Amino acid sequence: MDNDAPFLRWAQRVETAMGHALPSASVHPQSLHAAMRHAVLGGGKRIRPLLVYATGSVFGTDERWLDAPAAAVELIHAYSLVHDDLPSMDNDEVRRGRPTVHVAFDEATAILAGDALQSLAFEVLAEAPVASELRVAWLRSLSVAAGAAGMCGGQALDVDATGKAQGLADLERMHRLKTGALIRASVRMGALGGCIDEGTLQLLDKFADALGLAFQVRDDILDVESTSRQLGKTAGKDAAQEKSTYPALLGMDGAKAKLVELDMAMHEALAPFRDHATALWALGKLAIHRTH
Amino acid sequence: MDNDAPFLRWAQRVETAMGHALPSASVHPQSLHAAMRHAVLGGGKRIRPLLVYATGSVFGTDERWLDAPAAAVELIHAYSLVHDDLPSMDNDEVRRGRPTVHVAFDEATAILAGDALQSLAFEVLAEAPVASELRVAWLRSLSVAAGAAGMCGGQALDVDATGKAQGLADLERMHRLKTGALIRASVRMGALGGCIDEGTLQLLDKFADALGLAFQVRDDILDVESTSRQLGKTAGKDAAQEKSTYPALLGMDGAKAKLVELDMAMHEALAPFRDHATALWALGKLAIHRTH
Repeated sequence: MDNDAPFLRWAQRVETAMGHALPSASVHPQSLHAAMRHAVLGGGKRIRPLLVYATGSVFGTDERWLDAPAAAVELIHAYSLVHDDLPSMDNDEVRRGRPTVHVAFDEATAILAGDALQSLAFEVLAEAPVASELRVAWLRSLSVAAGAAGMCGGQALDVDATGKAQGLADLERMHRLKTGALIRASVRMGALGGCIDEGTLQLLDKFADALGLAFQVRDDILDVESTSRQLGKTAGKDAAQEKSTYPALLGMDGAKAKLVELDMAMHEALAPFRDHATALWALGKLAIHRTH
Repeated sequence: MDNDAPFLRWAQRVETAMGHALPSASVHPQSLHAAMRHAVLGGGKRIRPLLVYATGSVFGTDERWLDAPAAAVELIHAYSLVHDDLPSMDNDEVRRGRPTVHVAFDEATAILAGDALQSLAFEVLAEAPVASELRVAWLRSLSVAAGAAGMCGGQALDVDATGKAQGLADLERMHRLKTGALIRASVRMGALGGCIDEGTLQLLDKFADALGLAFQVRDDILDVESTSRQLGKTAGKDAAQEKSTYPALLGMDGAKAKLVELDMAMHEALAPFRDHATALWALGKLAIHRTH
């Protein structure tokens, strides 16, 4: 990233906020609480929280206001990984270089930990120390993005598509829901504390959509080009599970050209914000260039 | 029930509200949406929504305000049943006389349908046509009750306790979280639209706690005395799974004496509300005397 300082500070802020919100592993029922903490703390790129803070910084929003939506969106993301990793879903045993929750604990605990993390995300927003109107606006954004019209719907499309040939339009539709909805909500929640008009929101949505897809295209490329050790999760799984991917549909050169196109779309969306959007711009670059 | 008319009307109101909130099964991804509708519609006693409306009626709250919390709490309850029925949890194949969601669909779809129902519950509250302050108050109540300090925590205690001997104190603690938290939230959400003081809330909490336990004691008794056909779910499962129950710990006579004690506690809590609490009182009686 061009300027690491705010990112490190923001990553620490959200880690602290989540650590406070999560129940202590020394309190009964310990296994549930330990599983929730295992799922959330000590790993992850925290892209969604960073997007919340970075978008807030465009409008000069007080960072303390943004801790709640930053923590909430990461709790939703963390719960979704716990459930996606389950044997009846992607059946993954390693995540962020550590055993997945159902491996470290058991399947029932993993399901419950995911469920409780989702509740906690909404609790964190409902109890945020800001005006009720802003809390409600965040809660609307996040609940819609997490549900059937967003992340869960996208995961259902992904499950349905496994082992089937999928065209580019279907693949993009799936990703726009599965990962795109939460990324868009991160940007929206970061913006909602500022004085924003509809045109501004549209530009930010456009940026978030491009960033979400870029992240996914890069993910597909890394799945082909990296080792499991580099990724901290099982590499080469897409091909093994016969999933449609950008490299499979467009070729590796086509997938990389797609990244260039998304880079331009992000640039175009952020241009009107000039240097207020430096942090967002750096996150866009990260999506394009990341190596794990 | 003493007076069926409001209960039938309220049951219809919440069915309509949930039907509107749920995504159509004719829209992609169909299997997810169909599973969500299967889990929610066409069955269930709707005790929690009835508690919302009945508590609201104590304070003369407009029923239209109460549709959102009534629907939301039932969506949370429905999602919890979908996940509790999963093979790695209670492994139940029949619910409300119909195949459980993972049997009618598959395990991945059941997990996702439960997840999406939880998101939908909070979405319904966040979009309710009432003041932001009331929405936030409802969202706090429901998110805390649904999470690790409530329903999910109780289910984790239940999973931990299966196959182990459990004393009466542990059993009550588990039930107070697993089913009690959501019942208490139903009553609280029904009350929050009215002009209420702390003393009133305490009485209502006392009523809700007694009703929640009464429901569970009656459930344990019915599991011993009824057939699966009468219950619409597998009977005799508690003994088969070596779960601690009130009849097992107190004997059948002791369990029935416990119901009488809880009946008195409910009566005491509701007495100050006199005939404003007729509907709540009828629901208390139902908890004690129900046959399925």
